Amino acid sequence: MSLNKINSNIKKIGVLTGGGDAPGLNAVIRAVVKSAIRQYGLEVVGFINGFSGIIHKDYRELTEANVSGILPRGGTILGTTNRDNPFRYAVEINGEKTFQDVSDQAIENLKDLGIDALAIIGGDGSLAIAYEFYKKGIPVVGIPKTIDNDLSATDVTFGFDTALTTASEAIDKLHTTAESHHRVMILEVMGRYAGWIALHAGIAGGADVILLPEKPFTIERICAKIQERSNMGKKFSIVVVAEGAKLESGEMVVQRMVHESHDPVRLGGIGNRIGEDIERCTGMETRVTVLGHLQRGGSPTAYDRILGTRFGVKAVELLVDGKYGHMVALKGAEVQEVTLDSAISQLKQVDPHGELVRAAEAVGVSFG
Amino acid sequence: MSLNKINSNIKKIGVLTGGGDAPGLNAVIRAVVKSAIRQYGLEVVGFINGFSGIIHKDYRELTEANVSGILPRGGTILGTTNRDNPFRYAVEINGEKTFQDVSDQAIENLKDLGIDALAIIGGDGSLAIAYEFYKKGIPVVGIPKTIDNDLSATDVTFGFDTALTTASEAIDKLHTTAESHHRVMILEVMGRYAGWIALHAGIAGGADVILLPEKPFTIERICAKIQERSNMGKKFSIVVVAEGAKLESGEMVVQRMVHESHDPVRLGGIGNRIGEDIERCTGMETRVTVLGHLQRGGSPTAYDRILGTRFGVKAVELLVDGKYGHMVALKGAEVQEVTLDSAISQLKQVDPHGELVRAAEAVGVSFG
Amino acid sequence: MSLNKINSNIKKIGVLTGGGDAPGLNAVIRAVVKSAIRQYGLEVVGFINGFSGIIHKDYRELTEANVSGILPRGGTILGTTNRDNPFRYAVEINGEKTFQDVSDQAIENLKDLGIDALAIIGGDGSLAIAYEFYKKGIPVVGIPKTIDNDLSATDVTFGFDTALTTASEAIDKLHTTAESHHRVMILEVMGRYAGWIALHAGIAGGADVILLPEKPFTIERICAKIQERSNMGKKFSIVVVAEGAKLESGEMVVQRMVHESHDPVRLGGIGNRIGEDIERCTGMETRVTVLGHLQRGGSPTAYDRILGTRFGVKAVELLVDGKYGHMVALKGAEVQEVTLDSAISQLKQVDPHGELVRAAEAVGVSFG
Amino acid sequence: MSLNKINSNIKKIGVLTGGGDAPGLNAVIRAVVKSAIRQYGLEVVGFINGFSGIIHKDYRELTEANVSGILPRGGTILGTTNRDNPFRYAVEINGEKTFQDVSDQAIENLKDLGIDALAIIGGDGSLAIAYEFYKKGIPVVGIPKTIDNDLSATDVTFGFDTALTTASEAIDKLHTTAESHHRVMILEVMGRYAGWIALHAGIAGGADVILLPEKPFTIERICAKIQERSNMGKKFSIVVVAEGAKLESGEMVVQRMVHESHDPVRLGGIGNRIGEDIERCTGMETRVTVLGHLQRGGSPTAYDRILGTRFGVKAVELLVDGKYGHMVALKGAEVQEVTLDSAISQLKQVDPHGELVRAAEAVGVSFG
Repeated sequence: MSLNKINSNIKKIGVLTGGGDAPGLNAVIRAVVKSAIRQYGLEVVGFINGFSGIIHKDYRELTEANVSGILPRGGTILGTTNRDNPFRYAVEINGEKTFQDVSDQAIENLKDLGIDALAIIGGDGSLAIAYEFYKKGIPVVGIPKTIDNDLSATDVTFGFDTALTTASEAIDKLHTTAESHHRVMILEVMGRYAGWIALHAGIAGGADVILLPEKPFTIERICAKIQERSNMGKKFSIVVVAEGAKLESGEMVVQRMVHESHDPVRLGGIGNRIGEDIERCTGMETRVTVLGHLQRGGSPTAYDRILGTRFGVKAVELLVDGKYGHMVALKGAEVQEVTLDSAISQLKQVDPHGELVRAAEAVGVSFG
Repeated sequence: MSLNKINSNIKKIGVLTGGGDAPGLNAVIRAVVKSAIRQYGLEVVGFINGFSGIIHKDYRELTEANVSGILPRGGTILGTTNRDNPFRYAVEINGEKTFQDVSDQAIENLKDLGIDALAIIGGDGSLAIAYEFYKKGIPVVGIPKTIDNDLSATDVTFGFDTALTTASEAIDKLHTTAESHHRVMILEVMGRYAGWIALHAGIAGGADVILLPEKPFTIERICAKIQERSNMGKKFSIVVVAEGAKLESGEMVVQRMVHESHDPVRLGGIGNRIGEDIERCTGMETRVTVLGHLQRGGSPTAYDRILGTRFGVKAVELLVDGKYGHMVALKGAEVQEVTLDSAISQLKQVDPHGELVRAAEAVGVSFG
Repeated sequence: MSLNKINSNIKKIGVLTGGGDAPGLNAVIRAVVKSAIRQYGLEVVGFINGFSGIIHKDYRELTEANVSGILPRGGTILGTTNRDNPFRYAVEINGEKTFQDVSDQAIENLKDLGIDALAIIGGDGSLAIAYEFYKKGIPVVGIPKTIDNDLSATDVTFGFDTALTTASEAIDKLHTTAESHHRVMILEVMGRYAGWIALHAGIAGGADVILLPEKPFTIERICAKIQERSNMGKKFSIVVVAEGAKLESGEMVVQRMVHESHDPVRLGGIGNRIGEDIERCTGMETRVTVLGHLQRGGSPTAYDRILGTRFGVKAVELLVDGKYGHMVALKGAEVQEVTLDSAISQLKQVDPHGELVRAAEAVGVSFG
Repeated sequence: MSLNKINSNIKKIGVLTGGGDAPGLNAVIRAVVKSAIRQYGLEVVGFINGFSGIIHKDYRELTEANVSGILPRGGTILGTTNRDNPFRYAVEINGEKTFQDVSDQAIENLKDLGIDALAIIGGDGSLAIAYEFYKKGIPVVGIPKTIDNDLSATDVTFGFDTALTTASEAIDKLHTTAESHHRVMILEVMGRYAGWIALHAGIAGGADVILLPEKPFTIERICAKIQERSNMGKKFSIVVVAEGAKLESGEMVVQRMVHESHDPVRLGGIGNRIGEDIERCTGMETRVTVLGHLQRGGSPTAYDRILGTRFGVKAVELLVDGKYGHMVALKGAEVQEVTLDSAISQLKQVDPHGELVRAAEAVGVSFG
């Protein structure tokens, strides 16, 4: 194996995974490590549990042997967490909880470990922290990770295809029992602010009703659709509901709860709530499945492994080429770079009048 | 194709599926139809939606063409329902709901259609009705169906392997995200009176805690187990809970609700309830997945297709051999017959001190 | 359901599937039928077995009921064939085989059936025939289908994701046994002229060697790679080979055979041939798996169902908008139209120096 | 965790996996290790690559941490091989290959390592070696492993359910493409001396023809069956062939090859050979898929994980109870012990007139 000639003075890089886990994280880590070592002769250090690993100097040297066999595995070998933002680190002083900026200490730790640059794999929260480090002079590149696919700077993120595949397979299973038993089946899927999983899985699974955060619904319209089907002899219906779907009245379907353990909002329960309403207005039996974290788990699909691998290789290339402060992104068929600044600024939501929604409507989907 | 010589005066049989659907029903129907036609030159009629089809003369002639391609499909091509017991048929008289015995009318309908015998695929409810018909002189054989595997007269029923496979795959997915994110994952599975799905899926998925109806649990013991793991560096745990699991105190975890639409009890919610308790006593984040009817759905496993096929073939053989009032059953490696009488009398529960539970304990499973 | 206002004088359309089958065909057919009926109030006729159905007036009326439940199914409900080109139709005259142009008769048949326009789903062969019909004045749109993904006019075709997923899952399975048993495993996959399946599946499965038609290989380089791994303690290797992979010497690995039954070239056997060579030069046991038509089969992935649905909806839209002589295509995240003329002119091959190949090399893949 | 009281003077046990790998081996290893440590406070050593590990003192201490997470993984963490029988060990003396009995040295090595007893997981070859060690005074228990399910002493072995599931899923995929394209699809599966995989997978997948070693076939009967289907309008057929299937004429379909690398016979190619014959006599296009080692690979099914776990727990129990020279076995629903002596003496073949074959025939399967 011959190393690429590089002008870079980077010798050792750190990699970490932040925020919720997503299938494909290990594919990215493997690609970063293999590419860094094989292409450029770099050393690689993996920080444990996201930024917490930098703050607490909790890390592992990563060699090719360490990443052997991890490609098909879900999760992340480095661990991850939503907590421990170095720029706003929770500490308890005199029994009171407060937040401190420990980023200088973190940067000190990086220097101690001889780490010249960081590849940060994470969602908008982690990427915002990455950008803060970049502004303080640390060579950083970002790799986008959001299972909800709601990051505007990239066409697709890894993990999304696996999540929607899990949801789509669930709909397939619900179909056979719904049809045999003449029931309404509700499937609650992830998607607080963007309904990409619900929309894609709903189309792939042949759902009859799809409820999105972007297209407020009414129970009446859902029931009308189910009734219309019943009149045509279809004595069952499949409803896919994103956890953040909204009633047209503006009323929240379920109260968001501020949750102490750092997961800012926890919804849940919208499926059960809607199921009861549908049972009441249609008189048909309904059953509810809540996929929950199944959607984050499992072996990544081929698509996600390939995308993760390409992202990992590109991220190291950006670091070596000195393109700091950027994030890798898929644009059409190409993996490119965009500035971190632009990447973290905008949520990508479903266009309620776009081609995908219209295609769904054309094959008979109601959005309630 | 040469027909077997038979002394039987059976020329036309009816088949129906009753109760909740289970993966493999179509394999049974296909085997009944193919075997009846190919082996014995019989005609076959399929009743729609269980016993309702007999009461309302709702049926289809079933030919080989009708059952072509249904082997890999979940659900039942005949439809099914928990309702419409001919011996206790719900009618409304003067606005009041009451029950009538319409079995004589049902038997009249069978005669009108020239049906000489019935193959009834169903759970304990449907098999009890089958036995009533048998006592009234109708040539009947039963084919056991219970996704919960809780029928004592057969070692295994079809559908169970598919259900536990779905649950086991769910645990695999939860494992990767639990481990990456240091969380407690709760998986609520079917099993009101018997914990076979929870026990088998829990062993197959490597669960840390399994909660069964047959082994009352305490929250304290669950939390102690999770804490023990945490002390050993395992910062995550997987808890599988059967919907009918019971607290040692005798207290119901969730109130059973008598449900108007004929599904006698609907539980649900035990996963969420336990999740909150665990979060409180361990201080660890917990997430809950409720598989619900996913467990009934989907393409049957190879195991269930084979067992369903064997059951269907054997049932027709019993009818032709005049062994009425019997049910097919798996005993060891053999498909045999047992009397319907004996079959419907006893629930098969997990032996809390049996080999399977002890094997689970030997590999570290806690039963709370 | 309210119909879109259209100026079109199209009232009835025909749809057919030509060439080899691909997962997602039924998703396209369903979308064409549902969209045509629901959006525009059209009638739809499905021709049986591709163009043969037009020539022999072999067709079915297609209603929403006909396409209900077909979304998750592989294959095509209309049947397909590589034969029966109306512009070059094989007939036997006086015992001799000859070809005739029966396209005028085919057009007459369309008129007889009152069919105003055609949606033709097929590969380059079928699309070329579609273009011929268009030039003769028939309103036609094309929908691209090639499991090999080798059509330059669209970024991706449906069926490809399913095929590479099947191949990638096969590699996952081979990995565990290769590693346990210290063997070289060869997986032969589809790809006569383009190595997209081999390349994508190889990256997704973590293959060590990938052999493509676009990058001629030598046995020596393959064995050197396997030896290099062995020296590093990796006593197993995975080799993915496209059936059309070429030796650097220009020599064909296996002789292409002109096959009488109209499938122009049949390769096969390259896996076995290479396996023997590798066993000889490395002294390691090798085993060969030939996936064959497994890659065409099975339930389409969520990705392919969504893409097929979008293609079907767009095709009907093009017909109604009078954009005849076009083909639907995926460009980036958008489904657009391109002219049939441009679409059938160029094969899309793997760029041996492109980003995807370089990403594979960066993570250690050898291309022999 | 409280240890069971034992009278045993066993303190440290060795475990190894021999012969071809099978899904579920890791489940057994995990159960042996966890059970030994948790139940009885034993130490466990894993030998690398079967008996080779004893001969060369190649081993790892196995703790609970070592077996954490291996339950869902195919293959064996200990490695395996068909070679290196201590009672007939291949050595080269003066350039000539000869065999030596190195079992005394092996026993010496066990003593050096302080190993009091062995749990040997393997097929008939490895179990015969286990029995030899037992006769020389080593406390040994066997755990049966044969993917072909051809061991008479146990109803089922782990790995078999996974292998037939892989084969059955392959038939599902072939079905959709066969039907769409009017082809004959041949699937070659494992089974040299016993056709269990072919028979079970064929029934589960709805094959039309199944060819077994136990029921000699003729090409004429296969073609007659395919023709009969064609006459009924079924323009496709699925043929499943075990690699050891035999022509009625007694002629071998393909020549068995004595293979230098210690794999005693390697068949292969029977699928292609039969495919050509069928194409010739039916005039229909045929395609061949050779699953090969796919059948050994992949994550074990829930069934195999449970069976493997029960076997592992039982094996340790037998060792601790002093029941040396026995093998664990599944009898009906019970895991029991049988003597190694009886276990290795007889091949379990398909009964060509048994219930399973008759059930297959009843649903229309031809055995050629």
